[in-house]
Amino acid sequence: MTTTIGHDSPLYLGIDGGGSKCRVVLLDANDQILGEGLGGPANPLRGMKVATDSILNATQQALAVAGLTFNDMSRLIAGAGLAGVNMPQYYQLFSEWQHPFAELHLTSDLHTACIGAHRGQDGAVIIIGTGSCGLADVNGKVLDIGGHGFPYGDNGSGAWFGNQLVHHVLLAKDQIGPTTLMTTLLEAELGVSATLDIVSQFMHATPTIYARYAPLVFAAAEQGDAVAQQVIEQGARHIDNIANRLFSLNPTRLSLIGGLAYKVQPYLSAAVQNKITAAEASPEFGAVWFARNRRAQSVQTRKVK
Amino acid sequence: MTTTIGHDSPLYLGIDGGGSKCRVVLLDANDQILGEGLGGPANPLRGMKVATDSILNATQQALAVAGLTFNDMSRLIAGAGLAGVNMPQYYQLFSEWQHPFAELHLTSDLHTACIGAHRGQDGAVIIIGTGSCGLADVNGKVLDIGGHGFPYGDNGSGAWFGNQLVHHVLLAKDQIGPTTLMTTLLEAELGVSATLDIVSQFMHATPTIYARYAPLVFAAAEQGDAVAQQVIEQGARHIDNIANRLFSLNPTRLSLIGGLAYKVQPYLSAAVQNKITAAEASPEFGAVWFARNRRAQSVQTRKVK
Repeated sequence: MTTTIGHDSPLYLGIDGGGSKCRVVLLDANDQILGEGLGGPANPLRGMKVATDSILNATQQALAVAGLTFNDMSRLIAGAGLAGVNMPQYYQLFSEWQHPFAELHLTSDLHTACIGAHRGQDGAVIIIGTGSCGLADVNGKVLDIGGHGFPYGDNGSGAWFGNQLVHHVLLAKDQIGPTTLMTTLLEAELGVSATLDIVSQFMHATPTIYARYAPLVFAAAEQGDAVAQQVIEQGARHIDNIANRLFSLNPTRLSLIGGLAYKVQPYLSAAVQNKITAAEASPEFGAVWFARNRRAQSVQTRKVK
Repeated sequence: MTTTIGHDSPLYLGIDGGGSKCRVVLLDANDQILGEGLGGPANPLRGMKVATDSILNATQQALAVAGLTFNDMSRLIAGAGLAGVNMPQYYQLFSEWQHPFAELHLTSDLHTACIGAHRGQDGAVIIIGTGSCGLADVNGKVLDIGGHGFPYGDNGSGAWFGNQLVHHVLLAKDQIGPTTLMTTLLEAELGVSATLDIVSQFMHATPTIYARYAPLVFAAAEQGDAVAQQVIEQGARHIDNIANRLFSLNPTRLSLIGGLAYKVQPYLSAAVQNKITAAEASPEFGAVWFARNRRAQSVQTRKVK
C-alpha cells in the first residue's frame, strides 16, 4: 500500500455530504480504499462552518486510517456531492471556501449518487429517503427532478409517508375518514392514544421525524389495510412519474437509493421496475469519479487550446 | 354611560386570543360596548408571557377607552377563548395564571366563536382561516373536529391551499404534473420564475406564509384552471366532511368563519350550504356570554346544593 501513496502518486478524496451526515473515502489512482471517515452534516443550508468542519473531520479520520497526516490534505484531489449545492447561492458559498485540498470539484449529492451507482457510466437514480428526487445523466446531459423539500414537495418520500400516516390517523380519530390499522400501529409505537397526545408528538416535527414513522404505512398495507394501500399507491405513482420523466433522456439503467427504496420498489409500475438495477458503488466513489472526470475534461480542454 | 359602569354594576371582558393577535371587548350587563382593545398573539403555544402580556395590553386599551383605570381590572368578569387551550397542558398553564381579573373563564377560541356566531344559542361553526376546524355545541354537548395543525391536518385551510399551490406549480415545472395557470399567477406574485427561486421562497415557510398565497388557487379556478379546481374540490370535500360530522349533533345552524370562508363556501355541497347562516356576533362577544353562562351555572349549582 505504501507505494500507492508515495509523494508523486495522486490521492483522491470522495465526499458525500448530506443533511445528517457526511461520508468520505480516500482512494489511490486505482480506486483502492486507503481510508474512510464519517462526519456530521455537510449541507450548506445548516451553515458553512458546520458543513466544512464535518468534511474536515471526516477527512482527518480517513487520512489517519491511511497513515497520512493533516499536511497531506494539500495533496488531495477532492470531489464532493453535497445536498443543497444545486441551489446557486449555496454552490457559490462552497466555491468560495478556502479549502485545504489541491483541488475541489463540486456537484450535488444526487449527481455523485448517480455516478457511483453506474460506475461513472450514463444512467439514472431516484433517491427515496427522508426526501425524494431523481437525476439522469446521459451523454453529458443532466436532468434533475424533485427534491424541492417538504411539505410542498418530496411526495413518495419518508417524510411524506409519515405525514400521510398522521393525517389519516387523525381523520379516522375525528371520524371524518375511514378507520385504518395505521391508528393501532401508530398508537402502539407512540404509547399514547388520545388525539391531543398524538398531535403533540408531531406539532414541531421535522421531515426526519415524520420519516421515522413511514414504515408503519407499509406494515399496515402488508396486513391488508386499504387506506395504507391507497397512500402507497399515491406515493408510488409520484415516484413512477419521476422515473418516466427521467426516461425522456433514455438512460439504460435506473437505480433506487435511500432507506425507503426497497419498500416502495414493489409498488412501482412494471415498466419502471424492469429498468431497475442495483447501485454498483456508493456516492463517495461517485464523487471521486466526478472529480477525475472533471480533471480529464479540463486537461483535454487545455490540450485543444 | 357612566351609570352602567358604576361601582356596583358588573363589567364583562371578552377575550378572543389567536395565534397572531388578541381582541378584547369590554361590555356592561346589557352587552353595551364600553371599550375595545387589540394585542399581540395570545396563544399559550407562543409562551405564557407573550400571551398574558397581549391580553393585558389589549385590556388596558379597552379600559382606557371606557374611561376606567388599571385598578378596574379587578372588577372584570372575563371570558377567554384562546387557541391552544383545547390541549390539556396549555389549559392547565392558563388556569394557573395569577390574572388580575375578578374571574377568568377559559375555553377554546373555536368554542367562543361558536357561542358568538349563534348569540349563545346552540349551533355549529367551521373556521376556514390559516387552519381549519369545526365545533358543534348542542344541548350542552360539544364536538370538536380538526384543527390539529399543518401539514398533517388543516386540509381545506389557507395553509393547505397555499401548500397545494406550491406543490402543483413545482410538479408542472418539473414536467411531472399538468401545466396550470397557478404557475403564471405564482410567478407574477413572487416576481421570480426559476424553480429554485420559487423553492427558496417557501423553504422555511410558516402556515401563515402559505395561507397568503391561497387566493391564487381560487383566482386560477375562476379562470377555468382544471388543476386548481381539483385542489378546491379536494379541500371543499374535507370541509364538507367536518360539517357532516358536526351535523351528527343536529345543530340547527352552521356558520363559516375565517378569512377563506367566503372563497370555499360556493364549493361546498348543497346540504352543507343550506345550513349556513351568517355569524351574528364576534368571538369576543361569545367569550363574554361564555363567562356569563358559566357564572349562571355555578350559581345554579350552588343553589341546588
